[in-house]
Amino acid sequence: MEFEESGIGEECGVFGCLAAGEWPTQLEVAQIITLGLVALQHRGQESAGIVTSNGSSPPTYTTLKGMGLVSTAFKPEDMLKLRYGNLGIGHTRYSTTGMSELQNCQPFVVDTLHGRIAVAHNGELFNAAALRRKVMRHGVGLSTSSDSELITQLLCLTPPMEEVDNPDWVARIKNLMTLTPTSYSLLIMHKDVIYAVRDPYGNRPLCIGRLVPISKLHSSGGGEGDTEGWVVSSESCSFQSIGAKYYCEVRPGEIVQISKHGVKSLNIIPRPEGDPPAFCIFEYVYFARPDSIFEGQMVYTVRQRCGRQLAIEAPTDADVVSTVPESATPAALGYAQESGLPYVEVLCKNRYVGRTFIQPDTRLRQLGVAKKFGALTDNFAGKRVVLVDDSIVRGNTISPIIKLLKEAGATEVHIRVASPPIRFPCYMGINIPTKEELIANRPEFKDLANYLDP
Amino acid sequence: MEFEESGIGEECGVFGCLAAGEWPTQLEVAQIITLGLVALQHRGQESAGIVTSNGSSPPTYTTLKGMGLVSTAFKPEDMLKLRYGNLGIGHTRYSTTGMSELQNCQPFVVDTLHGRIAVAHNGELFNAAALRRKVMRHGVGLSTSSDSELITQLLCLTPPMEEVDNPDWVARIKNLMTLTPTSYSLLIMHKDVIYAVRDPYGNRPLCIGRLVPISKLHSSGGGEGDTEGWVVSSESCSFQSIGAKYYCEVRPGEIVQISKHGVKSLNIIPRPEGDPPAFCIFEYVYFARPDSIFEGQMVYTVRQRCGRQLAIEAPTDADVVSTVPESATPAALGYAQESGLPYVEVLCKNRYVGRTFIQPDTRLRQLGVAKKFGALTDNFAGKRVVLVDDSIVRGNTISPIIKLLKEAGATEVHIRVASPPIRFPCYMGINIPTKEELIANRPEFKDLANYLDP
Amino acid sequence: MEFEESGIGEECGVFGCLAAGEWPTQLEVAQIITLGLVALQHRGQESAGIVTSNGSSPPTYTTLKGMGLVSTAFKPEDMLKLRYGNLGIGHTRYSTTGMSELQNCQPFVVDTLHGRIAVAHNGELFNAAALRRKVMRHGVGLSTSSDSELITQLLCLTPPMEEVDNPDWVARIKNLMTLTPTSYSLLIMHKDVIYAVRDPYGNRPLCIGRLVPISKLHSSGGGEGDTEGWVVSSESCSFQSIGAKYYCEVRPGEIVQISKHGVKSLNIIPRPEGDPPAFCIFEYVYFARPDSIFEGQMVYTVRQRCGRQLAIEAPTDADVVSTVPESATPAALGYAQESGLPYVEVLCKNRYVGRTFIQPDTRLRQLGVAKKFGALTDNFAGKRVVLVDDSIVRGNTISPIIKLLKEAGATEVHIRVASPPIRFPCYMGINIPTKEELIANRPEFKDLANYLDP
Amino acid sequence: MEFEESGIGEECGVFGCLAAGEWPTQLEVAQIITLGLVALQHRGQESAGIVTSNGSSPPTYTTLKGMGLVSTAFKPEDMLKLRYGNLGIGHTRYSTTGMSELQNCQPFVVDTLHGRIAVAHNGELFNAAALRRKVMRHGVGLSTSSDSELITQLLCLTPPMEEVDNPDWVARIKNLMTLTPTSYSLLIMHKDVIYAVRDPYGNRPLCIGRLVPISKLHSSGGGEGDTEGWVVSSESCSFQSIGAKYYCEVRPGEIVQISKHGVKSLNIIPRPEGDPPAFCIFEYVYFARPDSIFEGQMVYTVRQRCGRQLAIEAPTDADVVSTVPESATPAALGYAQESGLPYVEVLCKNRYVGRTFIQPDTRLRQLGVAKKFGALTDNFAGKRVVLVDDSIVRGNTISPIIKLLKEAGATEVHIRVASPPIRFPCYMGINIPTKEELIANRPEFKDLANYLDP
Repeated sequence: MEFEESGIGEECGVFGCLAAGEWPTQLEVAQIITLGLVALQHRGQESAGIVTSNGSSPPTYTTLKGMGLVSTAFKPEDMLKLRYGNLGIGHTRYSTTGMSELQNCQPFVVDTLHGRIAVAHNGELFNAAALRRKVMRHGVGLSTSSDSELITQLLCLTPPMEEVDNPDWVARIKNLMTLTPTSYSLLIMHKDVIYAVRDPYGNRPLCIGRLVPISKLHSSGGGEGDTEGWVVSSESCSFQSIGAKYYCEVRPGEIVQISKHGVKSLNIIPRPEGDPPAFCIFEYVYFARPDSIFEGQMVYTVRQRCGRQLAIEAPTDADVVSTVPESATPAALGYAQESGLPYVEVLCKNRYVGRTFIQPDTRLRQLGVAKKFGALTDNFAGKRVVLVDDSIVRGNTISPIIKLLKEAGATEVHIRVASPPIRFPCYMGINIPTKEELIANRPEFKDLANYLDP
Repeated sequence: MEFEESGIGEECGVFGCLAAGEWPTQLEVAQIITLGLVALQHRGQESAGIVTSNGSSPPTYTTLKGMGLVSTAFKPEDMLKLRYGNLGIGHTRYSTTGMSELQNCQPFVVDTLHGRIAVAHNGELFNAAALRRKVMRHGVGLSTSSDSELITQLLCLTPPMEEVDNPDWVARIKNLMTLTPTSYSLLIMHKDVIYAVRDPYGNRPLCIGRLVPISKLHSSGGGEGDTEGWVVSSESCSFQSIGAKYYCEVRPGEIVQISKHGVKSLNIIPRPEGDPPAFCIFEYVYFARPDSIFEGQMVYTVRQRCGRQLAIEAPTDADVVSTVPESATPAALGYAQESGLPYVEVLCKNRYVGRTFIQPDTRLRQLGVAKKFGALTDNFAGKRVVLVDDSIVRGNTISPIIKLLKEAGATEVHIRVASPPIRFPCYMGINIPTKEELIANRPEFKDLANYLDP
Repeated sequence: MEFEESGIGEECGVFGCLAAGEWPTQLEVAQIITLGLVALQHRGQESAGIVTSNGSSPPTYTTLKGMGLVSTAFKPEDMLKLRYGNLGIGHTRYSTTGMSELQNCQPFVVDTLHGRIAVAHNGELFNAAALRRKVMRHGVGLSTSSDSELITQLLCLTPPMEEVDNPDWVARIKNLMTLTPTSYSLLIMHKDVIYAVRDPYGNRPLCIGRLVPISKLHSSGGGEGDTEGWVVSSESCSFQSIGAKYYCEVRPGEIVQISKHGVKSLNIIPRPEGDPPAFCIFEYVYFARPDSIFEGQMVYTVRQRCGRQLAIEAPTDADVVSTVPESATPAALGYAQESGLPYVEVLCKNRYVGRTFIQPDTRLRQLGVAKKFGALTDNFAGKRVVLVDDSIVRGNTISPIIKLLKEAGATEVHIRVASPPIRFPCYMGINIPTKEELIANRPEFKDLANYLDP
Repeated sequence: MEFEESGIGEECGVFGCLAAGEWPTQLEVAQIITLGLVALQHRGQESAGIVTSNGSSPPTYTTLKGMGLVSTAFKPEDMLKLRYGNLGIGHTRYSTTGMSELQNCQPFVVDTLHGRIAVAHNGELFNAAALRRKVMRHGVGLSTSSDSELITQLLCLTPPMEEVDNPDWVARIKNLMTLTPTSYSLLIMHKDVIYAVRDPYGNRPLCIGRLVPISKLHSSGGGEGDTEGWVVSSESCSFQSIGAKYYCEVRPGEIVQISKHGVKSLNIIPRPEGDPPAFCIFEYVYFARPDSIFEGQMVYTVRQRCGRQLAIEAPTDADVVSTVPESATPAALGYAQESGLPYVEVLCKNRYVGRTFIQPDTRLRQLGVAKKFGALTDNFAGKRVVLVDDSIVRGNTISPIIKLLKEAGATEVHIRVASPPIRFPCYMGINIPTKEELIANRPEFKDLANYLDP
């Protein structure tokens, strides 16, 4: 809950689809991308966009963008515009800067001497400022502050554009990757190909799925012969809802080409020697949907194991274990399993409490968290509660919950946090509070229990 | 989950607030009603309305209505209009008929010879058709098909209106109650009084809370001397978020008067002799928020006890117990506790999947439920699962889940339903499918397991 | 221009259509009403509504209402809902009270013991307050402050409603007319009939047209045999755009029944003896479209004759005659014709200047009228100008124009006003400024020229 | 009227303002630009945009864009964002392509190595395709199809960008002008300067005004000492509404620098030798507001003189002269003056008839023009009418009007057209119908009278 309330974000989701077999395809490419984005909606709710291509030469691109959830951004009548397409990419955006405008909505599409390209990006270039100067020094004006436009213009920059028949976009992508090692998971569509690119540090997730006949969806095995199409997504949780089988993860530094001829790994750009990969820890802690798979493990299971470990490292004498719904639930169940204490629910979440549109007068201002949670008193009155939360950031959301539970009859409340304290800012796009705001860096941290429940 | 998907509904929520002490009040009456409605939002999301009164003679009423969730219907600039008020009532509406229009939005306000009244209603008059003819025979034209307008006009009908100084609204309410015994929980605001009325069968819930200084919110006892105001609500779950203490339930057939002078029970209209009360069972099964209290018991606990009883009545040999999130979770935990089997989560819900705005082509149409749930495979692969659902209605939503779990590796799936099969329609406003559609009335019911998992 | 700026209003427009010949009709009844309302749009831009009926027993009514201009209020997809209908009535509303809400949008539709009726009303009942008490004394609650609801409930009141086969609505209409002599032009739709009613004083206009085959539209004569349908409208200007021929005016106090069987005058309710009719003078001055015909005369011609008479009554020595566009133009041309002075244009209107959405800072606040008009200097520099306006109300809009013209080079500016000074309020629904605000009642009026151009 | 109905367009309006005197200024720069755009609204109603700058180093730019009229595009709460600014430019857009999207809305703003610039453009580059390739060959991706982006990137291209202290934007503008001689009127804002640029052919208008104290607005003379600020606009009609005095026209090929230090002509790029200037004739015929001044003459007067000349070149024996409102009125009055025939109004325009939102059924489809105009019969019945229109394009809108007038009683209708027949397409951005569609190129043109009135 600390995480949710902390405002930490900048995830975004990318999703692509390409029809195998004869083109024009019978596969509902645009609908698959739309459903894929709905399954990635937890990664960003500010805006959504889709670009489809018929893949011919020159290709016809169709673009649809809108503010808000996928279901708001794409009106049924607009969906008809996208009906036909043999391949396409989409994006769902989370906004850090507050500059929530339609022009920042991705994918970004540009005309180049080598044809039209579309780019969808999750991540943040740590050296964006230097790269912007580089591009501008070349005589380019940048019309947005987004990395997607920057990436697009960088792709045009080197090698010099010439009027050739077979432009080498892969060389351009490699050049981009040498210019900036992190962080990005990228989808680049050009004519009849989608390139899926993950930065050398593997900071953001990206994986590939295979569309098979629904009837064969759950049969094991099956050659690539029955492939109806390919999908590429930030998270594997999107595969199930569109009838795709998990195929592989795009590896750190890898460029994968997805075309009618299948999936082909073109290259792996290495990290600086000695550097370990740097997959974003927050994907495991909070961002990702629990049924997604990263590095061969299900996110839910990772969270649950953290809860188990927590019970080992920080046991306590109590009557029940519970969660601050919803993201801490796997860890709480893990803690309960390991500790042998019974798991109960103590808080009931009102999912309709969103952004507070009321400026409450004095009386209501004191109530705070009570708007969001109801106490399930029967489950803990007269009991000692272990309450598991997902993280500790500023340390300002858990106090009211402790108060709520004690006032409703809990005799003791023991807080257990399923991830390490956050101590440092992030240079790869996660907008963490300032060092001074992080509770782990403050004097109160030494006596945290008394600070949180004076 | 069956319940959620079944389209069973017509709940609506009503909420009222009246400031104690000197008027004009410092109490933020309109904000309290708004937050109260947010806490009742699960009872209806189609439209919302608030009417406040300054309580003077003649009173000034201010009305705000809008379509959608409370947060959508009331814009911040509109809230300012409601800022001042000493009492008021609100309503959040669930639509059965599909006639979702602003003019059906409650509370319904009319000018009468005895002043302006506002009416908010939860329920449905079983003899509405006859009552409409009665009203129209008297020479009244009815401008909507809503029961609220009908109730309002019935209140004006008897006794005949005369230009008197102290109109007797209670006599009118009693007359209404003799005309129709069910179903309604009503709030009627007239000048400086709110009447809270519950039908003789007690079909819909209604309870009263006391606003106390936030500092005294959790101290036990405390006389009425420290009362800052009174609230009346469909469900007690709304009390916590506005700083109110549970005071009492309005009893079946009771008329309660809420005024500056406190809460006063005026009358109890009895049921036909021999008839038992008829509290709507679906409040316990699905409608109500788990932290609400009806008839002295917390809804969560009732659901949990149903799960325990289920484990006694229908035990099975299995490895794990789980829920179809979210409404069946208390029952699933109860089943796990009673049976001694471990509780795990097997399904992850995508809360962004709403109304399908895509008319899926052939391929996607086969996927159905997969859009809504992801499988948490690690938790059940190779295991025998007891899956608890809240109810069984048409029996057409659980099959795909069984399939999903089996394909993801469950060796056995045992379905347990935490409420009795629904066999009959409802004449009190719950729009249950036709008798023929109810699975409990169909031949397949005899061999349900094979029907659901062929 | 004084009139336009004065805020004088409350006109509204009503329009009805009924298909002759076999039902279901091939005539596009809903489209004809929509176009009719567009042609009456100058009478009210706040909201619009249409109700159509298939005319069967019981009839199916379809209603469409919306805020704003007809083209905004009725979306194309909504129009489809209205597609089928054999008769219908519509309304376009002007708001005086600022209570611009959808619920005040007409036609008003109610269910009565004698079937469903729809009412569209232009005018204001001078004794509305007394009639409201009368209705409420009968035990009716009134849900709006609109006269349309009041009229509808009055129609239900007398004679008492009984369950009969052939309800006598005409008797009810007559009773209404005895209760209130003015002001109203009414359309009442019941099942398969439209009643067109004009109050005994004939305060608001109402006339009837005959739909003929387009090919015969301009041939003179032609029996009723070629009638394709009937229309009834506030103004005859709407007939041309839908292919109707002017048929007759509804006379003061007349009840006309329009049905499949043709148009039939049922009754004329007389005025109190000695009282003259009281057609609203402002229809001629400003409200009506210039191509409409009232009492046998074209509005444009009446305005032009006023200008001619003005030249006779108030001649002046000048070089050119001009208008404050656009409503004073016919009078200005009349003045020029009669005086023999040349007519020129001196002001160019910016039709995009609407409601000022800017709160101008000090500098811009001084510019006022200059936002609305540009000076056509070549046409009057160095000349003496007679400037004709339509009316004089508060006398606060003409001064800046005099200043504008003089500063742009006019040597003299002579103001001539084409209608008498307004001295009194109106009790029939025209919201005239208070007596004190009317310039004709103020001391400055004695030396008006110096007051307007100090 | 032919012109209005012909769909000929692509005008757009540009407007800039810069405060003289001390910065931060007290001058309401953003409000002045907004009102300036309202006065240019007739040049484009699709979208509007404003960018203001505080002029400091580096400058803070604030941007506001929206679809529709200025009054729709800029909401009051948004205007607050623009409140402070010492200079700024705005644009109102007319769409030819149907690609009416927010991303095409101007001004176009980009970050360059030499700072942020904003560009507003009226016109169309005749060699846009070649210039796009040129830019793309340099390695730039173009994200829109608009000339504004192209111009912006061309400005960045030459000379090469270097990190210098005093970037020479004028050299860049000159380079742009050598690359493309027409057509453009441009406003380019960089930090604290606005460059006003007109193409060497002077195809589109652009002029400069001086903001003076309102009290001195109409005094003649006055040195530049009393200058409060400078404005630059497509048309001088916008000056009056914001309190500006006409200062000068930007000459064909001229680059004017507007800064705190006043207005300075920097350069005039010549046309190819022997080429005459090519001011767009349609500005005089239809586009411009009649009170604007081009080349020292008022547009109204030019139109009127065309009418006079028409009476000399094409006299006729008739009773009255009239206009197809509203654009032909000056010419009609000129014709009447020269011919000595009386001027009357014969058509009344319904200004609420906009885009047809109804797909009319067979009956209504035959009515066409009647929706738009009402006949003022009294003014011409039994008379011979000379009807003046502004232009002849396809020749398909005047026939129904002739029919309308004749059917309403005109004995003869003589059409006179106040501008030459259009025979050729335009390569400078005016979207004229194809050569084949132009009536002047069709065989029917030889016997036009019989064709138009068979």
